[in-house]
Amino acid sequence: MDQQLHFITVATRDLDAGRSFYRELGWTPTLDVPGEIIFYQVAPGLLLGLFLDDKFTQDVGLDATPVPTGVTLSHNVDNPAEVSRVVSAMAAAGAAVLKEPGDGAFGGVFHALVRDPNGIVWEIAHNPGWRIDEAGAVVLS
Amino acid sequence: MDQQLHFITVATRDLDAGRSFYRELGWTPTLDVPGEIIFYQVAPGLLLGLFLDDKFTQDVGLDATPVPTGVTLSHNVDNPAEVSRVVSAMAAAGAAVLKEPGDGAFGGVFHALVRDPNGIVWEIAHNPGWRIDEAGAVVLS
Repeated sequence: MDQQLHFITVATRDLDAGRSFYRELGWTPTLDVPGEIIFYQVAPGLLLGLFLDDKFTQDVGLDATPVPTGVTLSHNVDNPAEVSRVVSAMAAAGAAVLKEPGDGAFGGVFHALVRDPNGIVWEIAHNPGWRIDEAGAVVLS
Repeated sequence: MDQQLHFITVATRDLDAGRSFYRELGWTPTLDVPGEIIFYQVAPGLLLGLFLDDKFTQDVGLDATPVPTGVTLSHNVDNPAEVSRVVSAMAAAGAAVLKEPGDGAFGGVFHALVRDPNGIVWEIAHNPGWRIDEAGAVVLS
């Protein structure tokens, strides 16, 4: 199995709230199917999908409608001030701040945790040991 | 906020089972911190992290230990036979098959759903309308 992810799909209760939230942050969808799914490109070759929760449930073959838990999505920025700036923008767009910007418990990061209108938990982080080389490889030091 | 994801981090009950499973599939970690976290590069500039669940809980500031729900990770392949081949390899490595290879309910895909030893649900899919252009942009048609 190639070591490659192509989609992250998240069960979404309120697709319109998700669309408004990410539009407010300046994101542009690759594809938007009202009442079904919205895709955003979030890395080369990778889409994040907000999938209306009853359709998600049907597609996965589950009985009950899940809320996303046990997963965080992280977005890295260049410095601690930028963490605060992005968190403020997310809060202004309707996110809930779970953890104010500060030192993380692990990994030497300065970070904050924010929940989007549909329960996706985002970590906004500055990690001094993180970089991406010219070939796209992540280097952690 | 830039439209870019850098980490997907999943609460993992049994880190050793996770390590064995992805090793069996031929994956190589970017970083492996026993008893804490394992990172795999899964797209340019993007790491998938298996994070021991009690540390995940502490990092996110939660009271209870979550199991990943409400999220699927998708891996696309070139044809339906390859879906079956990858699902067989995952089952042989210890995954549970939730949905045998067949037509999906949405998006015109041929797919299967598989759960890894820690509850991560993978969709293995052939989507004839999916491609990635030379710049890394996903094109859906």
